[in-house]
Amino acid sequence: MPMSSSKIKLAATLQRSHWGFLTRINPTQWSRQMSVVAKSLKYTQHGEPQEVLQLVEDKLPDPKDNQVLVKILAAPINPADINTIQGKYPVKPKFPAVGGNECVAEIICVGDKVKGLEPGQHVIPLASGLGTWTTHAVYKEDQLLIVSKKVGLAEAATSTVNPTTAYRMLKDFVQLCPGDTVIQNGANSAVGQAVHQLCRAWGINSVGIVRDRPEIAELKQMLQCLGATEVLTETEIRTSDIFKSGKLKKPRLAFNCVGGKSATEVSRHLDNGGVLVTYGGMSREPVTVATGPLIFKDIAFRGFWMTRWSKENYSSPERSKMFKEIFELMEQGKFVAPNHEMVPLANFKDAAAAALNFKGFTGKKYILDMSI
Amino acid sequence: MPMSSSKIKLAATLQRSHWGFLTRINPTQWSRQMSVVAKSLKYTQHGEPQEVLQLVEDKLPDPKDNQVLVKILAAPINPADINTIQGKYPVKPKFPAVGGNECVAEIICVGDKVKGLEPGQHVIPLASGLGTWTTHAVYKEDQLLIVSKKVGLAEAATSTVNPTTAYRMLKDFVQLCPGDTVIQNGANSAVGQAVHQLCRAWGINSVGIVRDRPEIAELKQMLQCLGATEVLTETEIRTSDIFKSGKLKKPRLAFNCVGGKSATEVSRHLDNGGVLVTYGGMSREPVTVATGPLIFKDIAFRGFWMTRWSKENYSSPERSKMFKEIFELMEQGKFVAPNHEMVPLANFKDAAAAALNFKGFTGKKYILDMSI
Repeated sequence: MPMSSSKIKLAATLQRSHWGFLTRINPTQWSRQMSVVAKSLKYTQHGEPQEVLQLVEDKLPDPKDNQVLVKILAAPINPADINTIQGKYPVKPKFPAVGGNECVAEIICVGDKVKGLEPGQHVIPLASGLGTWTTHAVYKEDQLLIVSKKVGLAEAATSTVNPTTAYRMLKDFVQLCPGDTVIQNGANSAVGQAVHQLCRAWGINSVGIVRDRPEIAELKQMLQCLGATEVLTETEIRTSDIFKSGKLKKPRLAFNCVGGKSATEVSRHLDNGGVLVTYGGMSREPVTVATGPLIFKDIAFRGFWMTRWSKENYSSPERSKMFKEIFELMEQGKFVAPNHEMVPLANFKDAAAAALNFKGFTGKKYILDMSI
Repeated sequence: MPMSSSKIKLAATLQRSHWGFLTRINPTQWSRQMSVVAKSLKYTQHGEPQEVLQLVEDKLPDPKDNQVLVKILAAPINPADINTIQGKYPVKPKFPAVGGNECVAEIICVGDKVKGLEPGQHVIPLASGLGTWTTHAVYKEDQLLIVSKKVGLAEAATSTVNPTTAYRMLKDFVQLCPGDTVIQNGANSAVGQAVHQLCRAWGINSVGIVRDRPEIAELKQMLQCLGATEVLTETEIRTSDIFKSGKLKKPRLAFNCVGGKSATEVSRHLDNGGVLVTYGGMSREPVTVATGPLIFKDIAFRGFWMTRWSKENYSSPERSKMFKEIFELMEQGKFVAPNHEMVPLANFKDAAAAALNFKGFTGKKYILDMSI
């Protein structure tokens, strides 16, 4: 990026932050003379988010060495964030902790050992557990990934959890070819929406199962617009002949975020050698696995947790390739953020309450908007 | 084998068969001039074995081309054989069908295109569904595998189903190293006994779970003699600290032939990334899979069916290697047949009834003895 452009962006950033005077140290790095105050949603004990989260102001230290000061633009409220605050998630924060696990941010200034980032760029956190429900933060260079500004804020802010989960589940369990079929329940979940969009991009048929509901026609239309080949209710799938009739190939891959009877029904449609991947359990009922399909149909029941994959593949080429593909689709408008609502940070209690009121995944994601 | 030795073995065979005059056609092949009558346990419809099995006499055709005439020496009654006759197994026979699926046999004579087999040798069937509950049979050369006579009849007769299942389950799901641990329920099943013996041979710790029962001390002793590192009842495993105390490594591989709560309990002890392989479901209850272990511990629930593996690997080097290893252990006395009772063919109804009276796997196998 030419320096003039960088300066303009930096200036634009300054107008909406607490910045004062800046000194250029070398052609690509900047240091600040005045401190910034971050407003963060913090908690010092586990509990219900509305009760334990406090909006706290902290003066941030100057970014040193390989540190990067960012202004957070948008950060979603994911179910796992709620569970983490409640103490119900396997990842335990150190108190005091800042809520949230993903975001998109703009770089304000960088430490003098930062090589690959510069002010004005949009970045997302590659590391987990950084705490993103805040107006500003100091991260390290290797915790951040540059995102093109052509990628929308909602898309970038929600890119590291749900689209990557969908991507890995489609890539890592069964070798799929164009024309193959994938089936999933909770098809209107954020991951479900991502699955439909990736399948469309890759020429894979995706069958989505959703609960029966009054507004089923609109939901079906929304998911079909995202690329779902077929959307069926839990009642409809029980009597559907889409696979028997040969209209679609029997699926060798199924995704489950519900559990209970819904998981059993989805697994029933798998072809020999098929895999059911569980990534959620919104019904709170376990997956019931009959002996016959396990043995005679060689059906495998697996699980997937993006947090583990990201830790195990932190700097892998496969991870870079994944983000490149996802962001390209987002830039091309072929992959949009899940159905969502932007909420000002000041309204975080309403957003947390709404997130808690999810009855299962409703497909609506609340995103804290710090860009205003 | 020198011809003189072959002739002696042939003569020995003749004494206890229906054979008369034999003509040598070329240095390694023989043809017979008189026919043999086979007594076979046949059925022409599905039903309970005692009711539908009939002892039928058939004059066998001369072995032609690549055919091999054998005298069956011993053939076990496996649970899958009973289920096949009942019509409850995925493999459907053509009627009239001969019961049984494995055996050890002695070659009587061979067709003129047979290259690798000669009279007097012991063989086992490599193909499934040949029908082995018979005194004599005509098979094809490529359906048979030579077994050293140093391998006991009970061991050879029961080598293709249970030991191979144990072998593959130990090899194909998790890469085990000496010092690793395997856990299994139904540890006294025929496969369970094979698992303990293979683990002992390979330096792997095996923990066996069995149902509580009055004669538990004897059962524990028997399984420990086969190589079990620990044998615990279903009650004992719930409070055992063998893994927490560090006495044994947490298992990454578990075998389940029971289902229901027993399967859940066994899976609970798996280390992160562990696999529970189901190969039977004697409780007739499904496997219940909680969402947490699937996602956060990356526990996989798989199934194994030896019949499929054998079909997919019929002539594979891996299959030859497996039989070589199993027979070497048998020859060395390091692998014995499961706890069994030899039953004369004439008493097949009693044996079938006893096999049906299994309450789960009792670990006792009935083997039809056609060698007398």
